[in-house]
Amino acid sequence: MFYHVKELQYRAKPDRPNPVYAKKLQEILGGQYGEISVAMQYLFQGWNVRGGDNKYRDLLMDTGAEELAHIEMLATMIARLLENTPEVDLDQAVSDPVVAAILGGTNPQHAIVSGAGAMPVDSVGNRWTASYIGASGNLLADMRANLTAESMGRLQAVRLYEETDDRGVKDMLSWLIARDTMHQNQWLAAIAELEAKENVVVPSTFPRELEKQEVSYTLFNYSAGNESAKGRWAYGPSMDGCGVFNYVENPVPFGKKPKLKPAPKWLHDTPLNVIRTSDVHPDPDTK
Amino acid sequence: MFYHVKELQYRAKPDRPNPVYAKKLQEILGGQYGEISVAMQYLFQGWNVRGGDNKYRDLLMDTGAEELAHIEMLATMIARLLENTPEVDLDQAVSDPVVAAILGGTNPQHAIVSGAGAMPVDSVGNRWTASYIGASGNLLADMRANLTAESMGRLQAVRLYEETDDRGVKDMLSWLIARDTMHQNQWLAAIAELEAKENVVVPSTFPRELEKQEVSYTLFNYSAGNESAKGRWAYGPSMDGCGVFNYVENPVPFGKKPKLKPAPKWLHDTPLNVIRTSDVHPDPDTK
Amino acid sequence: MFYHVKELQYRAKPDRPNPVYAKKLQEILGGQYGEISVAMQYLFQGWNVRGGDNKYRDLLMDTGAEELAHIEMLATMIARLLENTPEVDLDQAVSDPVVAAILGGTNPQHAIVSGAGAMPVDSVGNRWTASYIGASGNLLADMRANLTAESMGRLQAVRLYEETDDRGVKDMLSWLIARDTMHQNQWLAAIAELEAKENVVVPSTFPRELEKQEVSYTLFNYSAGNESAKGRWAYGPSMDGCGVFNYVENPVPFGKKPKLKPAPKWLHDTPLNVIRTSDVHPDPDTK
Amino acid sequence: MFYHVKELQYRAKPDRPNPVYAKKLQEILGGQYGEISVAMQYLFQGWNVRGGDNKYRDLLMDTGAEELAHIEMLATMIARLLENTPEVDLDQAVSDPVVAAILGGTNPQHAIVSGAGAMPVDSVGNRWTASYIGASGNLLADMRANLTAESMGRLQAVRLYEETDDRGVKDMLSWLIARDTMHQNQWLAAIAELEAKENVVVPSTFPRELEKQEVSYTLFNYSAGNESAKGRWAYGPSMDGCGVFNYVENPVPFGKKPKLKPAPKWLHDTPLNVIRTSDVHPDPDTK
Amino acid sequence: MFYHVKELQYRAKPDRPNPVYAKKLQEILGGQYGEISVAMQYLFQGWNVRGGDNKYRDLLMDTGAEELAHIEMLATMIARLLENTPEVDLDQAVSDPVVAAILGGTNPQHAIVSGAGAMPVDSVGNRWTASYIGASGNLLADMRANLTAESMGRLQAVRLYEETDDRGVKDMLSWLIARDTMHQNQWLAAIAELEAKENVVVPSTFPRELEKQEVSYTLFNYSAGNESAKGRWAYGPSMDGCGVFNYVENPVPFGKKPKLKPAPKWLHDTPLNVIRTSDVHPDPDTK
Amino acid sequence: MFYHVKELQYRAKPDRPNPVYAKKLQEILGGQYGEISVAMQYLFQGWNVRGGDNKYRDLLMDTGAEELAHIEMLATMIARLLENTPEVDLDQAVSDPVVAAILGGTNPQHAIVSGAGAMPVDSVGNRWTASYIGASGNLLADMRANLTAESMGRLQAVRLYEETDDRGVKDMLSWLIARDTMHQNQWLAAIAELEAKENVVVPSTFPRELEKQEVSYTLFNYSAGNESAKGRWAYGPSMDGCGVFNYVENPVPFGKKPKLKPAPKWLHDTPLNVIRTSDVHPDPDTK
Repeated sequence: MFYHVKELQYRAKPDRPNPVYAKKLQEILGGQYGEISVAMQYLFQGWNVRGGDNKYRDLLMDTGAEELAHIEMLATMIARLLENTPEVDLDQAVSDPVVAAILGGTNPQHAIVSGAGAMPVDSVGNRWTASYIGASGNLLADMRANLTAESMGRLQAVRLYEETDDRGVKDMLSWLIARDTMHQNQWLAAIAELEAKENVVVPSTFPRELEKQEVSYTLFNYSAGNESAKGRWAYGPSMDGCGVFNYVENPVPFGKKPKLKPAPKWLHDTPLNVIRTSDVHPDPDTK
Repeated sequence: MFYHVKELQYRAKPDRPNPVYAKKLQEILGGQYGEISVAMQYLFQGWNVRGGDNKYRDLLMDTGAEELAHIEMLATMIARLLENTPEVDLDQAVSDPVVAAILGGTNPQHAIVSGAGAMPVDSVGNRWTASYIGASGNLLADMRANLTAESMGRLQAVRLYEETDDRGVKDMLSWLIARDTMHQNQWLAAIAELEAKENVVVPSTFPRELEKQEVSYTLFNYSAGNESAKGRWAYGPSMDGCGVFNYVENPVPFGKKPKLKPAPKWLHDTPLNVIRTSDVHPDPDTK
Repeated sequence: MFYHVKELQYRAKPDRPNPVYAKKLQEILGGQYGEISVAMQYLFQGWNVRGGDNKYRDLLMDTGAEELAHIEMLATMIARLLENTPEVDLDQAVSDPVVAAILGGTNPQHAIVSGAGAMPVDSVGNRWTASYIGASGNLLADMRANLTAESMGRLQAVRLYEETDDRGVKDMLSWLIARDTMHQNQWLAAIAELEAKENVVVPSTFPRELEKQEVSYTLFNYSAGNESAKGRWAYGPSMDGCGVFNYVENPVPFGKKPKLKPAPKWLHDTPLNVIRTSDVHPDPDTK
Repeated sequence: MFYHVKELQYRAKPDRPNPVYAKKLQEILGGQYGEISVAMQYLFQGWNVRGGDNKYRDLLMDTGAEELAHIEMLATMIARLLENTPEVDLDQAVSDPVVAAILGGTNPQHAIVSGAGAMPVDSVGNRWTASYIGASGNLLADMRANLTAESMGRLQAVRLYEETDDRGVKDMLSWLIARDTMHQNQWLAAIAELEAKENVVVPSTFPRELEKQEVSYTLFNYSAGNESAKGRWAYGPSMDGCGVFNYVENPVPFGKKPKLKPAPKWLHDTPLNVIRTSDVHPDPDTK
Repeated sequence: MFYHVKELQYRAKPDRPNPVYAKKLQEILGGQYGEISVAMQYLFQGWNVRGGDNKYRDLLMDTGAEELAHIEMLATMIARLLENTPEVDLDQAVSDPVVAAILGGTNPQHAIVSGAGAMPVDSVGNRWTASYIGASGNLLADMRANLTAESMGRLQAVRLYEETDDRGVKDMLSWLIARDTMHQNQWLAAIAELEAKENVVVPSTFPRELEKQEVSYTLFNYSAGNESAKGRWAYGPSMDGCGVFNYVENPVPFGKKPKLKPAPKWLHDTPLNVIRTSDVHPDPDTK
Repeated sequence: MFYHVKELQYRAKPDRPNPVYAKKLQEILGGQYGEISVAMQYLFQGWNVRGGDNKYRDLLMDTGAEELAHIEMLATMIARLLENTPEVDLDQAVSDPVVAAILGGTNPQHAIVSGAGAMPVDSVGNRWTASYIGASGNLLADMRANLTAESMGRLQAVRLYEETDDRGVKDMLSWLIARDTMHQNQWLAAIAELEAKENVVVPSTFPRELEKQEVSYTLFNYSAGNESAKGRWAYGPSMDGCGVFNYVENPVPFGKKPKLKPAPKWLHDTPLNVIRTSDVHPDPDTK
């Protein structure tokens, strides 16, 4: 269950409105790696934690609840960046390049649809979709998804930091960037714990002799040129400590050419022997 | 540029048709973490690698090309699982539970839409979308996304392995599972290399003093109960070696209650002072 | 900012697992009118409330926070309905109709993707999308969207109540249905307040003489047959008190046939005068 | 069955082309609350009306057919706004701010994809999706969805009216705004009729004693601060006349902390007791 | 503008309800090549026809209006197939395989969401999306899209015809299949007219010498094996009469290996020279 | 199985960076008819070819593999068009119209999300979706879909050619346009072969007497005005040689008004006879 307090986790006030930047900032609110994504991902992962050690569930709920606060901060910031939105018109652009820029660089839905409010969309206007998130029922896989999301999210926040001179925006982003530093650190810590317990290949509980172990540590060179042979992944012990990397420079197929059986008649594939419908005497018993 | 050979990377032949399993197997072909996702993710990441050390680009292209071969194997397997698809009818289900099961457990589009062929969809029929993939222009973030995808993908392949007794299907899955073992190992190796070069927090090049460092290593306990205080992420040196984790049991807000300015008149928010349109004398100068 | 407590708002425990019902119950978790939709809709509306009377913002945040708790209850219930999920196989269906039913009636992603956990999807497996929600910057429009969502949501919860005999599930649904009773009542109360202030047509602040008032209260009979003339909407004073309904039995067009100008050459529409490319001497100055 | 006449319901001719405004106007053609949405929503609701009083079905078909005419008007207007679309180039923008604005503010698909024609998209280019519409098999719920759609739609049309000085566009919008006035009035009239028959909580036929009536009229204060206690929804008789609103300032959980059973082995959750795969002797009987 | 009559274009009455078939039949109502797709495609193409010969616009509007009638017939048929929908329960499946089949083979949203009504979805429950349709501003391209849609649609209708024994359903499908015969014929006729005017390669107005004509009639053999050399496309005069097909057995690249410039610093790619953030002295002038 | 070589099929190097054009060029990479669409469409069709004459499968694989090379060329070109992307700010737009244009006309995700790399999106930022493609298990239907895709794709490439003066971009487009010339020719050749074998109406194997032949060649004039009577489709022998076109000027309905049975009680439609819940004594046996 959740309680809300009206104060923000951290302040979210720009120096001045800027509808063009408001459009961009939507990326880390409602984009693929935005705050809605991490909030929903952590909460669903948390709710689905089964049995065992509740510290993971607790950590997920702690962080999920925090991400809800980040959605709120960004929604507030975007609403403020949209204040004083003018009605702009093409004619005004003739004499005023700023108007021209505003005309082109804003999200028109911020005026027409949300009435100067934040939306659950990314920086080009795609609506948020749960296709962005993962919760698998395997803790290590989930923690890796979380580390990925925080890495992508911090990268985007940093780029947005670089794209503005507004001190209020930079102030808020410096908070979010710091929190992403923590969140990358915490998922790394969780991953370290889990990998120490069960090794690094997910899932660790699948019996190794049931996989084709002869290709479990092989790099096939399907892209001409051998630059990839120089990496750590091409020689030496494998990262899971269970094998040795090897490199196959000229990989050949292990299977044959497939040939599929003809489709049953009722699926009506194009027949490749000559029949012209106009000449056909229909089958009285088609089915 | 790509060349295709007709032989499969590995054989893809089931013992017998099974349209119910064909529906399920679609998950690792066209689902969120299926082969289309990894193929497209690695290829886009590879094409976007800039400057520097080409071994990463080469590794991405090697693996992207391999994933195309896996799409092909799965498409072939699914087409074979769909062979001899009967026309089933509700009436037949009265006397035959297997027919009843087939009726319910298949994807009707496998008959109506694809004519007994594989489709770019997941196990419930959602069409594949590029919302599933990431390519960020930051190698470490991308490698983490790749490790996540392979962890999720191997987990799903293992679950599908458990859900069948068909030896032909299990044979093919044992190949794919082994390749996922390699791919997890190789992305782990790449991550190790990259982290050794630039530390673990992505992006590493953002000046640390520009973030609010006072909360860069803090776990806020937003979910009542202190189980999360027991984890490695709550005390001791941080994973990036740049700070010390600390735990805040009763976090309070750092910001104030936000209050947004009223909307400009032309956005037509509901006015909260009493006006009834029927009484209004229209403003001659509305704009 | 949000705080989470680990206790559920209300208990969510089924009598027994039932993966077929788990699939159905997803509708009111992650469907068009499910709990994710109302949570996100109320929160975004709340964050975007501008100026004026904060009781609406507060009410929206109260209810948005509650809906987060409902997501949690449903996620918990679905996870429990998925416990003891067997690995089912087509062969077992031969002798066991229940197995046959399970095989067909479950969501395969509950096994393959989420590992027996709830997902942000509806009852057929569509991922939740923010295309479901609205937050317009006009309070009355938003409150009507909220009343709609609660009406749809309660209707679906009632139908799901009818589709099960599990007392634990029915117990939880009786809670959610009661809360939907309250939420319909509260949005009705808010609507009554707002309509009393500004009349019923949204937005109320648009000057009436700027619309084509001659058709503001006219029912055009575009569907042959006059049944619709019998409704309250076809005669008498209009609901906004500003006009009188009238009924036009045989409506005619008010506009002319449109004729669009030819496309500029550079858009390459099919030319309808005879030119064969093979005869064309290319224009040396194509642009 | 439908007949089409070539004349428009009302004229749709701008004073002059304006590709930037064409992009915006798409919102009420192909957006969430645009004319495609209301046309499809009313038609599907109409086709699904069961038994009973055909005046509702007739009204839905009347209005659905009209909305098809509105799609046509908007498509025509947008095609005209796109006439004379120049080929614009970045170099031209150096000396001409209008070109710069056009460059930025247009939808590039209006040139590349539709060849100066209207598209079934919103103002940022999202393709129309049936996720926008509802048809529930409950008339009152449907009528509320319709009132919501017309409220949102009129609000957006009014904002678009404010954003242009083109008299031809304003003329057409004044028609659409008037029709939205009628449509809000007519759905309000239908709602009044239906609520008079069956009370206000949808669905009205669910036995009241089957819901947890102790919380059917309770406002839980999940957002700190008591502003919401001041509204009509917090005291006095409920809107359905069946209860009395009450306000709970400090709501506590009614349920317990959930604890989910461990996942079955075959789902391969991360094991939280120490096992390293490299040490494991595989289980000979994995399934 | 559109007028609706209440009579159906053709009768749509099944012998008996069948919710499993109702789910399947949705494919040709709301699927990729269903009636919503063709209705919307023809109407948008018609509205966007520019200048010239109005017989194409008229034909598109004729057919678009007819497809609206087909949506109506299918919606009616599906609603009737859903009549008498029982509340089914897992327990009943124990003793009744038909119940088991129904349980699995139906679309749960037909009960929960639409209340026994048709929906704008396909046979697996994906909501209809305008991503399915095309309207390009080039008549010949559009007519080919139309021929494709009718070919796909008739194929699906035929497969659905084969999958049922219900005489009422077969009767209605035999109407739709006949209309698809006409529609394929009519688009073929239009294509023949247009190709006679402007040759077969779309668009025909692009000057031939501006394309790399040396590869305009070349088949590159990128898939090992020469079966494709046997087709009409590999030798002889090209279909447009402007060239001669030729076959390249061993195609080589014409371009070089691409090498992209390093990203600018502010995009924060992973640096591949060794820097550890913990050692970095921050740049005082980061931007 | 696929092999990759690092050289491009053809060079992809612009004269100079241009982020505005990069956004537009995305249309033919990740749009509805872009290179991802044709690559995936041909590969899935190829993998699903059953039995019979392998030259079709081989041709599909040849061309599918080539389209992968085109994705690569476009990805490379877009990455280069994005080089030297400046950090632009609203303030700079005051004095510099080019900056203003760039601000508005670029895809912000090219900076924030992909870090100056190509993305699997179209020119407005919609992510690629497999809803764009078709593979039906009927060769003739598939070939028509392919001809459509190449017609649309070439049209879009030509429009993009017209929209730029960059010689490097034009050079690459002249290659792609030439390949589209070939691909239209080759699918036309395949269609000619297949139609010669089995006539023109897909599928050709459905017995003609099972369709309602009395309307198989009839044009119904549902759109007032007789322009459409002038086309080849309205008189003379049909294109399939099996009938004679005829024109019905005033088509009437063949079916009756549908009337659906009332919904079962458990679906809770709004009851249209008067019952007020507040007066209802609940049914003790609700189910």
